[in-house]
Amino acid sequence: MSSKRIIYLPLGGAGEIGMNCYVYGYGAPDKERLIVVDLGVTFPDMDGTPGVDLIMPDITWLKDRRGQIDAIFITHAHEDHIGAVGHLWESLGAPIYARAFTANLARRKMDEHGYGPETVRTVSAWPETVAAGPFTVGFLPISHSIPESSALVIDVAGERLIHTGDFKLDPQPVVGEAFDPDLWAEVSKPGVKALICDSTNVFSPAPGRSEATLSQPIEALVADAKALVVATTFASNVARLKTLAEAGDRAGRSICLLGRAMRRMIEAAVETGVLTGFPKVIAPEDVGSLPRENVMLIVTGSQGERRAASAQLSRGKYNGITLKEGDLFLFSSKTIPGNEKEVIRIMNNLSEMGVDVVDDSGGLYHVSGHANRPDLEQLQDIVNPQIVVPMHGEHRHLREHTRLAQKKGRAGVLAVNGTMVDLSGNAPTVAGFVETGRTYLDGSVQIGALDGIVRDRIRMALNGHVIVTVILDEEDEPLGDPWCDMMGLAEVGRSHVPLTDILEEDLSQFMGRAGEKTLRDDDKLEEGLKRLVRNSCLNEIGKKPEVTVVISRLA
Amino acid sequence: MSSKRIIYLPLGGAGEIGMNCYVYGYGAPDKERLIVVDLGVTFPDMDGTPGVDLIMPDITWLKDRRGQIDAIFITHAHEDHIGAVGHLWESLGAPIYARAFTANLARRKMDEHGYGPETVRTVSAWPETVAAGPFTVGFLPISHSIPESSALVIDVAGERLIHTGDFKLDPQPVVGEAFDPDLWAEVSKPGVKALICDSTNVFSPAPGRSEATLSQPIEALVADAKALVVATTFASNVARLKTLAEAGDRAGRSICLLGRAMRRMIEAAVETGVLTGFPKVIAPEDVGSLPRENVMLIVTGSQGERRAASAQLSRGKYNGITLKEGDLFLFSSKTIPGNEKEVIRIMNNLSEMGVDVVDDSGGLYHVSGHANRPDLEQLQDIVNPQIVVPMHGEHRHLREHTRLAQKKGRAGVLAVNGTMVDLSGNAPTVAGFVETGRTYLDGSVQIGALDGIVRDRIRMALNGHVIVTVILDEEDEPLGDPWCDMMGLAEVGRSHVPLTDILEEDLSQFMGRAGEKTLRDDDKLEEGLKRLVRNSCLNEIGKKPEVTVVISRLA
Repeated sequence: MSSKRIIYLPLGGAGEIGMNCYVYGYGAPDKERLIVVDLGVTFPDMDGTPGVDLIMPDITWLKDRRGQIDAIFITHAHEDHIGAVGHLWESLGAPIYARAFTANLARRKMDEHGYGPETVRTVSAWPETVAAGPFTVGFLPISHSIPESSALVIDVAGERLIHTGDFKLDPQPVVGEAFDPDLWAEVSKPGVKALICDSTNVFSPAPGRSEATLSQPIEALVADAKALVVATTFASNVARLKTLAEAGDRAGRSICLLGRAMRRMIEAAVETGVLTGFPKVIAPEDVGSLPRENVMLIVTGSQGERRAASAQLSRGKYNGITLKEGDLFLFSSKTIPGNEKEVIRIMNNLSEMGVDVVDDSGGLYHVSGHANRPDLEQLQDIVNPQIVVPMHGEHRHLREHTRLAQKKGRAGVLAVNGTMVDLSGNAPTVAGFVETGRTYLDGSVQIGALDGIVRDRIRMALNGHVIVTVILDEEDEPLGDPWCDMMGLAEVGRSHVPLTDILEEDLSQFMGRAGEKTLRDDDKLEEGLKRLVRNSCLNEIGKKPEVTVVISRLA
Repeated sequence: MSSKRIIYLPLGGAGEIGMNCYVYGYGAPDKERLIVVDLGVTFPDMDGTPGVDLIMPDITWLKDRRGQIDAIFITHAHEDHIGAVGHLWESLGAPIYARAFTANLARRKMDEHGYGPETVRTVSAWPETVAAGPFTVGFLPISHSIPESSALVIDVAGERLIHTGDFKLDPQPVVGEAFDPDLWAEVSKPGVKALICDSTNVFSPAPGRSEATLSQPIEALVADAKALVVATTFASNVARLKTLAEAGDRAGRSICLLGRAMRRMIEAAVETGVLTGFPKVIAPEDVGSLPRENVMLIVTGSQGERRAASAQLSRGKYNGITLKEGDLFLFSSKTIPGNEKEVIRIMNNLSEMGVDVVDDSGGLYHVSGHANRPDLEQLQDIVNPQIVVPMHGEHRHLREHTRLAQKKGRAGVLAVNGTMVDLSGNAPTVAGFVETGRTYLDGSVQIGALDGIVRDRIRMALNGHVIVTVILDEEDEPLGDPWCDMMGLAEVGRSHVPLTDILEEDLSQFMGRAGEKTLRDDDKLEEGLKRLVRNSCLNEIGKKPEVTVVISRLA
């Protein structure tokens, strides 16, 4: 028995914000039975992942232990916790457990990949529990910026672990369950070995604000508006959608939802009973028949996503609706780092249309879904865990959160993705390191982050691409002159002569001078031609392009 | 005389932040004598301008009127006002005027392009003036985040215009001249036709804070530090460098400057006498011989620039110096939108080293260099101009600033890049539109933003690149099979067979089926092969790549 251990292993989400995926195990080393918590994604960008569609954790370690996995638990339906279920499930195979709203959305994702609804099992809130191998797991309600977010109460080998998922301590979350300190205290009473805890807002010094604080300022803003009102927020923030819609409703406006993601969320929330009393909505085609001052649009695209409703409205007509001078556009959201330029672009497009833009810079129209520093302390006080394991955060967040735990006299452990922590003893110990990384969904194919494919794209984007074609006859003699095609390079450089002419002249001379040994050897020839092209380009246009050499030998 | 007019024409900086370039003219329509104010740059990014080195205004309109340009004035030495002088001067040819510190830096830039120091003429502050054609121009001191920033007092045809440049109203700027409301009132006394005014911070509701407010919190922070202290800020913020260095000095630390840009700024500031009393600095190689707690590094790279000192220190040893657990790293700066991810990356690298990072999130360690909304109002009250022309701002800033002017009972005009405004009458009128845009410095070549070169790079980055090679003999018959090279694409797709094999098979079949008419016609053949490859790739890997077809005909 003493050789068995409880392990915690983050494969995503620890050392970054997004792409959450955590593993718990119990058993003899490398024979552990495993459960997976969350299968999230993160989003690509031009800087590091051009052309990539989605970024997922590399779950090779889990694939290799497929037979040891007893269950997958999803804490809540944000994409960075649920987004990869459909893409990665095939490699894991275990049943997926979630509460009703999350399960509803998980089934939609599984359906897109051809998996039936039975792959996802709905679990009620604590005290209901699920038995999964040596684990007994319950969903403990906690407030967040999406309905039915839950912490997991994980009982294993006589120990209790609590994995918070994403959370805030909200006494009035507008939709869904308020944070219930008494329930949490009761669940923690038997003693909690480890609190595995969201770290996102550890640097925010003030206590978090309740979702309910927004209704008054939003109502005042909408009531004051003279023409059309448009509001955008995260599609999954059902409480915010309700606050916005109610503000519109009270101002005598008909509500219209624009954007597929938003309609899907509302649908799931209504189907599962988490959302009631949402004002009646009208169809986009009915907007035109109403006076502008009697309409409020609630739209997707708060992060500036190019294809979402906000961006499309800012570029012109969308669903038959055009914004005009005097309309009001509210960003009831924060801009996630990296999305600033896109959001600002939309704001300027709207400005060109004469639309007045209001955002949360004054602190009135958005609250965070994550627990701030004092809230993290409060939760620690309630749960009173022996160990705190910070998760869901960049390195700096995990480090600060570890310090916070230690300051409060608890054992804290800084474990980034791939760090296997043994939670069995009195203090956590690092049991080893697992290779982790990222898997890209690229078109319809999964590729590894280190396969070099995306690196090649970045190189072409930075340096341009030259294609050199040479043909050699049966005797390895050049047949005609080599030639060049270019993509992404200036056509004329310092000589004021077309760059391809210069390159072809240089290549021709090279082929004339090249000895038999070079001409016979593809590698040598390719290397020589590449070096020549790169140097000629550097001289002519100050850039060293990527070069592909195509050697054709007539045989 | 009545046919002559005063015009204002922004070519950069109006409708964007950065890349400032403004033109003033006086004369009969299209015969105006011209002066240019500022020749700035803006910086490329992977999203829109991969591989580009620098972005400059398209000055074709000025080039076409080279003979009409009497002078170029540079308000201050920030890159977005001075950065293009060396690159664009050849097309303009007119003398460059600036105050001593700015002129010093302009000469360094001109020197890099082989132009002598006489191309830049040093002007003293108001009341000294420069006669340039019909214009008389004086440099009116104003505070900003770089020494000797100046507004321009432009007298022409009996009217006075004031072009603010970038500014804040700082009574204690630490280095350089404080804002002098009495001087500004005196200069404005004869009546100011138009105030052409910085708009950057029009959305900031509180009055701006003085540079001097930072010394106390920075001193307290540094005094408290236990090991090495590193601080980063904008290299050009000489006042901040002084504040930082003095804080280190008072805490008994030796100061070491890291980063070329920073040393160059200090050098220029000392040479021109704007900076005095800067603490003695030590060389990087002397840092190692001192106890860590006796050293403070002031380093470049507050925006996360990959090659700057901050980034290099966060990745490991730089100039023989390595950061360690317990060191303190201060970002005395704000992060410019778009740079968030790079800055955060550095913070996390530092966290991994155990370095404590402090930034301005608490509002203690940075102040903006631009006038906030109440400051803009104050300046309007002092200058009392007939017209306000907002400049240096995105569309939303210009719009809000125009409204602010109108709210105060003045004529305001929203003029984005390319809008020619006639300032001769009682109210400003739009006299026409000029085509404007951006010129990229790409390697050593200037290319147009719309040349399609960068667009091709972006396409390769998003879609990958396939090169198809076919050889046809003298009778237009295929010689051997076509083949494929790929760059930036997954090697294997849904068939689990190498993608190039699948493509080559498809291409081979296509060539076999192709009729004489297609085989004889390069365009037809290319189009057919491209379409085939794109569709096969879509089917196999879910992506449509860029395709280059190389057709070789043996003749």
